Amino acid sequence: MSNFGFSRLRLVNPYEPSFREARSAVNAAHVLASVEQFANVAEAVADCSLVVGTTAARNRELQHPLHLLEPAARQINDHLQAGRVALLFGSEKTGLSNQDFSHCHWVLHIPTHDDNVSMNLGQAVAVCLYEIAGQLGLPRKCENAEPTETSATSDETERLTRTLMDALVASEYVKTDAGEVTAEKLRRLLLRLNLSTADAETLLGMVRQILWKLNR
Amino acid sequence: MSNFGFSRLRLVNPYEPSFREARSAVNAAHVLASVEQFANVAEAVADCSLVVGTTAARNRELQHPLHLLEPAARQINDHLQAGRVALLFGSEKTGLSNQDFSHCHWVLHIPTHDDNVSMNLGQAVAVCLYEIAGQLGLPRKCENAEPTETSATSDETERLTRTLMDALVASEYVKTDAGEVTAEKLRRLLLRLNLSTADAETLLGMVRQILWKLNR
Repeated sequence: MSNFGFSRLRLVNPYEPSFREARSAVNAAHVLASVEQFANVAEAVADCSLVVGTTAARNRELQHPLHLLEPAARQINDHLQAGRVALLFGSEKTGLSNQDFSHCHWVLHIPTHDDNVSMNLGQAVAVCLYEIAGQLGLPRKCENAEPTETSATSDETERLTRTLMDALVASEYVKTDAGEVTAEKLRRLLLRLNLSTADAETLLGMVRQILWKLNR
Repeated sequence: MSNFGFSRLRLVNPYEPSFREARSAVNAAHVLASVEQFANVAEAVADCSLVVGTTAARNRELQHPLHLLEPAARQINDHLQAGRVALLFGSEKTGLSNQDFSHCHWVLHIPTHDDNVSMNLGQAVAVCLYEIAGQLGLPRKCENAEPTETSATSDETERLTRTLMDALVASEYVKTDAGEVTAEKLRRLLLRLNLSTADAETLLGMVRQILWKLNR
């Protein structure tokens, strides 16, 4: 991270013994010193308006668009004009879970050789940040290009997801015991829409009113 | 190495205790099993017709041309048509010595942030091989990238608009006399989302159920 100029490291529920023993590399103490910890992915990405997952698998049954690193880095850099981007890595052993992926707008993949697609975590991070930083150094846009709309943050989309879920339960579209699966599907669907902040707010207002009426 | 399809690892005078304990990553056993050892750099690069050194330093008194990784990878790939290329890395602590550099045709450098130019060895190798392999033509496309989704037709979006309007009226979000204005805003909003047919159908199913419940 430090080599390529990135500084905001967020950890979700780290394994305490390893985390306590973690030591930063030379010249990278500030990254580890300012690490932020979160209990779950939703909280960790709450202020980000683009959440990009990472995966070694090529053919897994992802319900997300899958992009190779190079074009993905371009999209990430474009989005940085509009809001924060989270790049989400899973644990070395198991990668990201379906639950984790449900918080992602899309997923990126480092092109690797067929014989060994699974990368060491630190190396995968280095390769991703090398590609993103390299592209960041190049002028990507005219300064007076069209002002971009603010994209909804994960937190804003999540509020809409939760409220709509409540309305679906209240209307008996969802049985309460199937709740978590439907919530994941719904979150993915809403993230796919790439809502603007304004549209997310409008929809949330509508769903809140509907929910209020359903509960009367 | 294994991730990017490289297999010929040559070690110069390795530190025996560490080397004996080295264990290969998953799926990379063949790299370590076929490692070749040499007493000095000259012997290690003897059959190569291009030897490229690596350095973190930018201003050191190199008596060699210094290239950034991306153009360097292009030159390496060009040369592979003609003969073998050695990519030479120094030890993590001290890097390559002047003696080592004297065996190199030229030197490459990974562009890094000014605050921390010194990279972890494994990460530096991964980044270099990613760049070289990418240019060599490792898969540029994902097998399941961009599944071609059918976009919702105007008709499909319109059905969703109408049903959602009915739910907004039933929940008293919209006063009936302000209906047409709100319907237009809602239609524009839903069109902005560029829904797929599948997502439009899912949303329509949800709103229909909610509407049914509101009207009971």
